[in-house]
Amino acid sequence: MRDFLQAVAALIGPAHLLTDAADTAPYTLDWRRRYQGLPLAVALPGSTAEAAELVKLCRRHQVAIVPQGGNTSTCGAATPDASGRQLVVTMRRLRAVRRLDADNNAITVEAGATLREVQLAAEQAGRLFPLSLASEGSCQIGGNLSTNAGGVAVLRYGTMRELTLGLEVVLPDGRVLDALAGLRKDTTGLDLKQWFIGAEGQLGLITAATLKLFPLPSARATALIGVDDIETAIRWLNGLRQRFDNRLTAFEVIEADCQQAIARHRPGQLPFTAPWLLLIELSDGGDDAALNEALLDWLAGQTPRDGVVAQSEAERRKLWLLREEISEIQKQDGPSIKHDIAVPTSALPQLVRDCGAALRQAYPGVRIVAFGHAGDGNLHYNISYTRPGNVDLFDDEPAVNAIVYDHVYRLGGTLAAEHGIGQLKPQWLERYKDPLALELMRTLKAALDPERLMNPGKWL
Amino acid sequence: MRDFLQAVAALIGPAHLLTDAADTAPYTLDWRRRYQGLPLAVALPGSTAEAAELVKLCRRHQVAIVPQGGNTSTCGAATPDASGRQLVVTMRRLRAVRRLDADNNAITVEAGATLREVQLAAEQAGRLFPLSLASEGSCQIGGNLSTNAGGVAVLRYGTMRELTLGLEVVLPDGRVLDALAGLRKDTTGLDLKQWFIGAEGQLGLITAATLKLFPLPSARATALIGVDDIETAIRWLNGLRQRFDNRLTAFEVIEADCQQAIARHRPGQLPFTAPWLLLIELSDGGDDAALNEALLDWLAGQTPRDGVVAQSEAERRKLWLLREEISEIQKQDGPSIKHDIAVPTSALPQLVRDCGAALRQAYPGVRIVAFGHAGDGNLHYNISYTRPGNVDLFDDEPAVNAIVYDHVYRLGGTLAAEHGIGQLKPQWLERYKDPLALELMRTLKAALDPERLMNPGKWL
Repeated sequence: MRDFLQAVAALIGPAHLLTDAADTAPYTLDWRRRYQGLPLAVALPGSTAEAAELVKLCRRHQVAIVPQGGNTSTCGAATPDASGRQLVVTMRRLRAVRRLDADNNAITVEAGATLREVQLAAEQAGRLFPLSLASEGSCQIGGNLSTNAGGVAVLRYGTMRELTLGLEVVLPDGRVLDALAGLRKDTTGLDLKQWFIGAEGQLGLITAATLKLFPLPSARATALIGVDDIETAIRWLNGLRQRFDNRLTAFEVIEADCQQAIARHRPGQLPFTAPWLLLIELSDGGDDAALNEALLDWLAGQTPRDGVVAQSEAERRKLWLLREEISEIQKQDGPSIKHDIAVPTSALPQLVRDCGAALRQAYPGVRIVAFGHAGDGNLHYNISYTRPGNVDLFDDEPAVNAIVYDHVYRLGGTLAAEHGIGQLKPQWLERYKDPLALELMRTLKAALDPERLMNPGKWL
Repeated sequence: MRDFLQAVAALIGPAHLLTDAADTAPYTLDWRRRYQGLPLAVALPGSTAEAAELVKLCRRHQVAIVPQGGNTSTCGAATPDASGRQLVVTMRRLRAVRRLDADNNAITVEAGATLREVQLAAEQAGRLFPLSLASEGSCQIGGNLSTNAGGVAVLRYGTMRELTLGLEVVLPDGRVLDALAGLRKDTTGLDLKQWFIGAEGQLGLITAATLKLFPLPSARATALIGVDDIETAIRWLNGLRQRFDNRLTAFEVIEADCQQAIARHRPGQLPFTAPWLLLIELSDGGDDAALNEALLDWLAGQTPRDGVVAQSEAERRKLWLLREEISEIQKQDGPSIKHDIAVPTSALPQLVRDCGAALRQAYPGVRIVAFGHAGDGNLHYNISYTRPGNVDLFDDEPAVNAIVYDHVYRLGGTLAAEHGIGQLKPQWLERYKDPLALELMRTLKAALDPERLMNPGKWL
């Protein structure tokens, strides 16, 4: 290993190879603090060419690579194992905007750029890069790609997959696939970039991407609405889509238990409570006043339990902050058994009703902190309760998961909507995913990475 | 082979296995009449299960399969070779709408349904299936998927790939991959459906798909505008996007030589001519009057050379007919060397200028019939001229293609934007596509179809 580390240091410069525990610490513990790894070292290549040579070196020395972005995975996808033999490779130094082509509505950025940096670069050119999620200040484009990130604007703009025009990838054999073309249409063969999006770094190392940009909306209208049940929420969703088409940019929900957590940690911030709160945002060209008026017009025809429409940018930010801080609040609230589930939006009411009943029966007093992207059928559905005898909540995780996922799959849903599989869910993937689908995925893995050096020990 | 044909007849019923030349004729000549195949037979399975058994039979007897949809390929992708040994498999009998879930904005249809049938089924549920192309009355969903079809609404709604939520596919070994889930977000592993979209039937037989639906627009505003050059067209494109965001549904262009062809075949139909005509359509909720007014407001700030805004549905249809009939008109006009190219929209002006100049220098008197989806950077760019001595135009095809594709690739473009490769362009794919990309595609082909029984003799 000393030979290997010397060769890496010579390649990328000794300052960019971290081996001391104090230096590697920020890269070894996952965001939720569930996985503590022990890496051989952490390498920060400074260019695609260096990254490619690094992969070749790893292959020669049979060192496994764990690609890491901003280290905000909620499922341990970017955390090394405890063997002390895996090399964490992070793209933090590869963060340039290589090209911004406003007339083509496209930006080419390196994988280590944070999502926020890309959003800002787009804004400076009068364009929008619409991916938006709570960790946007620290998560990186390479991680967004590797997990097919979602967030709060998928309803209108799609997931990271749909926002991607091209990729540059270092393959497991160290060759570089340059598929960065900024084209809206291309039928010259298979669409290779699709293979690497959502692959959690198990098929290659993404080093750059060409992403779609959109007109920067000049108007927003944002409302927080209280309704009585999830059925009403879905009726509102379809009513809003019918009226505003995809000016409807976000449609988030916050369930009662989740509102209580917010009220405990951010007293006085919630303007009102209700069985379900809807956070609705429209965006468009034109001005705020016209859009607000259109939203108010539509609301006048409804009968919400309660509601407020933001009258200023400050009020709008305040409403969004309630939603964005939920994950952080939950972290302070102690452990919970988290789920990142999705079903067809039409099936959300049945899921909430049936799965909630089953959990309440099995675990009296359970708190179901449900919130998220109802417009995409995607709920973060987090379970906690005080367990008699002070036993670790996570002892119950398998039983709780089985209840939740059984309901989700009965309704044609998924156990990982936008957070991926990582180290947290491989056993659940095995249980619920079609074995033929898994076999096909592994066929590609075996073809591209026969030595299994790309992020081994995850799910592929 | 007699054993094989008897087994197929027993499986799908003798009435659904066509062997007489008169019966198979509609399946053996491609739409542009460039490829005449001679198949062993044409099989019409009646269910996914039958299709799966049929693939197993083919494998047992080592009979190659040519999947065929509505036989509207413009590159011979669905035409068998002349060996008399390939089995054409068409899904014409598999055309049911299996499920329409309006609340989830999703429809599950079988591969043999025509695009028009799917559009109508969506409309009856108050929804839009937005894929729209000239051959929509006869092309089939399976073919749309296998070619990643584009058309006139990609600017707003994306290509067939972006419109697809799930697929059902018979793999080359006869097993059925059921990946039909109607989910907007799913990160349980690799997105397998992406492998089969755009694969031109070389990786499996698509039998059904779950597709996205959208709110049915209640308002449209359609204008035909004359401008002086392609630079102005691209300026308009970005101005319209900025003002109307993705209410801008279509942005088509028709160049001068193409207008002349229309004028010859449809005298009196073109309201005016100009170096470039723009066919612009906005769509939205609300009513036509408001949208028309908004478009007229915006137009008032511009200085078009000429322009007309449709004042009725009949006028709107008339404007669109001009655009939709171009391919048919071209067919009547005799042979032309066709190109289906795309570049970043920002590069379209340079392409048109430089490539046009190079062609005019090499072939004095050349007619460049250019039209298509400028909003996606995609032009149909068809070359014809009277060749001295009455020699076959296609003798010059290699030289003409080299001029066009050299310009396209210098600008980061593609030689097949939405029509695919088929039998027409494999040699050009070899010449212009990154060899590493081709190698990766063939790696997947070898892994999924080692016996090369799915649509062999095309490009994979």
